[in-house]
Amino acid sequence: MGAQYVEWEDYPDKKRKAHEILVSQSFPPPPEFQLAPIPGIRWKLWHRAIGGRLAVVPEESWAIVLKEKSQDMLHLLQFPYNGEPPKKLVTAQPITPNPLHFVRNHGGIPSIDPSAWFLRLDGLVKTPQKLTLSDLQDESRFPRMERLVTIQCSGTRRIEQIGLYAGEGDEMINAPWAEGAIGTAKYVGVSLKKVIKYCGGLEEGAKHLELVGADTYFKMNEVMNYAISVPYSKVKSHEVMLVWEMNGEPLPKIHGAPVRAVVMGYIGARSVKWLYRITAITEPTRAPVQSKEYLYFNQQVGKHNQRWIDGIQIQEMPVSSAIMSPWNKQVVLHEGKIEVKGWAYSGGGRWPERVEVSADGGFSWYAVPTENLSTKHKFAWRTWQMWLPCDVEGWVEIVVRCWDNSLNTQPIEVRNAWNWGLHVTSSAHRIRIYSVNKKKEKTRERLGEFERRGVSFVPITRPTDFPYMTWEEYEEYFKKAGPRDVDE
Amino acid sequence: MGAQYVEWEDYPDKKRKAHEILVSQSFPPPPEFQLAPIPGIRWKLWHRAIGGRLAVVPEESWAIVLKEKSQDMLHLLQFPYNGEPPKKLVTAQPITPNPLHFVRNHGGIPSIDPSAWFLRLDGLVKTPQKLTLSDLQDESRFPRMERLVTIQCSGTRRIEQIGLYAGEGDEMINAPWAEGAIGTAKYVGVSLKKVIKYCGGLEEGAKHLELVGADTYFKMNEVMNYAISVPYSKVKSHEVMLVWEMNGEPLPKIHGAPVRAVVMGYIGARSVKWLYRITAITEPTRAPVQSKEYLYFNQQVGKHNQRWIDGIQIQEMPVSSAIMSPWNKQVVLHEGKIEVKGWAYSGGGRWPERVEVSADGGFSWYAVPTENLSTKHKFAWRTWQMWLPCDVEGWVEIVVRCWDNSLNTQPIEVRNAWNWGLHVTSSAHRIRIYSVNKKKEKTRERLGEFERRGVSFVPITRPTDFPYMTWEEYEEYFKKAGPRDVDE
Repeated sequence: MGAQYVEWEDYPDKKRKAHEILVSQSFPPPPEFQLAPIPGIRWKLWHRAIGGRLAVVPEESWAIVLKEKSQDMLHLLQFPYNGEPPKKLVTAQPITPNPLHFVRNHGGIPSIDPSAWFLRLDGLVKTPQKLTLSDLQDESRFPRMERLVTIQCSGTRRIEQIGLYAGEGDEMINAPWAEGAIGTAKYVGVSLKKVIKYCGGLEEGAKHLELVGADTYFKMNEVMNYAISVPYSKVKSHEVMLVWEMNGEPLPKIHGAPVRAVVMGYIGARSVKWLYRITAITEPTRAPVQSKEYLYFNQQVGKHNQRWIDGIQIQEMPVSSAIMSPWNKQVVLHEGKIEVKGWAYSGGGRWPERVEVSADGGFSWYAVPTENLSTKHKFAWRTWQMWLPCDVEGWVEIVVRCWDNSLNTQPIEVRNAWNWGLHVTSSAHRIRIYSVNKKKEKTRERLGEFERRGVSFVPITRPTDFPYMTWEEYEEYFKKAGPRDVDE
Repeated sequence: MGAQYVEWEDYPDKKRKAHEILVSQSFPPPPEFQLAPIPGIRWKLWHRAIGGRLAVVPEESWAIVLKEKSQDMLHLLQFPYNGEPPKKLVTAQPITPNPLHFVRNHGGIPSIDPSAWFLRLDGLVKTPQKLTLSDLQDESRFPRMERLVTIQCSGTRRIEQIGLYAGEGDEMINAPWAEGAIGTAKYVGVSLKKVIKYCGGLEEGAKHLELVGADTYFKMNEVMNYAISVPYSKVKSHEVMLVWEMNGEPLPKIHGAPVRAVVMGYIGARSVKWLYRITAITEPTRAPVQSKEYLYFNQQVGKHNQRWIDGIQIQEMPVSSAIMSPWNKQVVLHEGKIEVKGWAYSGGGRWPERVEVSADGGFSWYAVPTENLSTKHKFAWRTWQMWLPCDVEGWVEIVVRCWDNSLNTQPIEVRNAWNWGLHVTSSAHRIRIYSVNKKKEKTRERLGEFERRGVSFVPITRPTDFPYMTWEEYEEYFKKAGPRDVDE
């Protein structure tokens, strides 16, 4: 045998020495991977390229984020700011604290002096008006209104669609939202219907109201103010509020101060922030956010055949739900039952009636006990909790689905509702958890071994130095059972 | 209105100027993500810590990789070297060229002088022998043997299991193999049976042969030579060769020069490279690769309850197949039929009889025409090709499955065969492709538009500046169809 390699079994001394070296030093752990965040550079460059007032908006906006939002927020996009609370805080309370409420801004945050601000009402109203904040707050003119409202972004849970198939690419609309792009707050303001009435009502033919915000929007090399419209029918039923208070505090700048719209049961994109103008019109606005974006296409529509007219306009969100605890990829040590928590919501004034959870990927469903659901509201989510039976160990998929009061329920797989715009992830929410059932003897013993040695059981992908079975036990077993290969 | 933000519609001049600025500059494209490679640092540190001959092995081995393997190889792990050919080359030819044959080394490449090399035969053989390379090549003693053999790593397509659920973590055994950890070559050597006969045959009770390689293996702070065993029944039927020639060339160093074993129909881990010793034994070897690794566990077995005795020893690979063209996430422009190519293989001397392909995620299956499969062999794969009908546009999932001559077929989903060790990804191989069907008028028109403008259609996630529909067409449509919202 040549001397250019080591025949270890021939050199027990070398072998022992090597062993000693290895146990006397520490080596780096196996590598990990992570997903990179989206920088949002283009929008800043656009603002700087335009210059003037806009040049400083990115920095100003970021300063407001740091001041008004919780340090726990997950920043999906720095500018325009898109952020959501981390999973553990989304449903910690049925009402979302302001610093944790998700933010999906379409532009920078305008700097508005509330005392100089007024709202313009024009277009097809009988008497166009300019109303200051004091005017709106004058209860002799407008009765005060308070509502608990859930606002949901149509991009909620988009990350699941992105994970399945790539879709329309644009760092703005493609923000990879998880389950936190939804929030619930108590809003105080006035009904837009009362304000329209104050303008003498609508002219003949007026059927929609265009709401315009002070934020600058960029679209295909054009700049404009953010604008959408809502049908007057929505206004008439007191489902559109003009709001200056959120959860007992003045409306935060990042959420639209001094005054924003809150359009109940519609996607968040309709609840215009930094509102400064309302125009009565005959048809839905042609502003791009309303006419060319937030469209829901058939699965086969894409870059190769997309026409705006083929997309359904996304106004109301369908029934949906999410598991907020445990988390995807979490290692769950339990005693045969796993605590599961989350939210359920349905748009358009429908509400969750039943929430069902599965521990076997959607084959069998357990109903969340009615008493474990938070209070019903016409325009708010319900949070829920249950103990889900789970005997199985290893990777299991926990799934939730909701039935609303119209008996709508959710498609079962992400692909069922996948669409090019990556909007409206309405499929049953599924998470993968690693189940470790301490009711099982072998598992309990093994966990005890980790504890005795003071070694952390997680991450499960980190190998252990101590096998569960001794070499003697292994030999013993095969002495009785015969070798692994069948003898002829 | 304050002067602190821009009401764009009030300042057409500013708006126009902004537009001019935007079209006059270029901005960076939307961001992309990528998976990080595995560095393989621990094994190098181990070698350096041990020192002596081993200290230089990482560099020597890498130099051999660069010399013997194609520049096209995908390096999954630099050291010990693990690499596979890129998808476009895996099935380019039914016989894999040596520089493109996958390599799954368990240690560094030993430096062996062929003229000094000899093979030791000992243990329960009647007459222990030492045979030089010239001895083995002496046709008066040993008849020459030539066979076409497919060698497959039990980690082939592991990346699909990793993508679904994390499993046992170890940068060595967890190499994220794709579909290229399989290769087919014509080997020349002698049958091990003849060599055993030359030793006078086996002693009473000898049922297994331990094959030992010159490479150094590290396991739980121990060092040793790489070793496994094969049952004598396998040897007796001339299914174990001692090989020094691969595809008409001397066996490359990286593939085990001067002599390696080729165990037909077994996983690659049994075909020991840099072979220097064969020992006849009564039971399968207790060497870790054979006794504690390459075990196939039930889905519920993991870090919390894993015992070696509960895993099935992985010797033969089950029936499997893979799509090598198109590639996962490829944008496929076609005329209603997509060309699909790949391989199919079954271990243990079974062979692919039928290959079936689906364009709808596994709901309907088309058989690959028999004449489109390469020649049948007892121990080699079959490559195949077909034109798969596909009318659907957008993201579709193409799936392949194989039936072997024993009528075994593949589980349909990755989860069906997922296991803690991430071995034996035997589920039907599925890829996601973006289908663009030029037989559709709208699609053809749109592609023409990209061509006229000289703009690349891919990547599809890159937004376009020119919509498919004009504003006038949009207005026209809603004039006829009415607005998006239903009027009361």
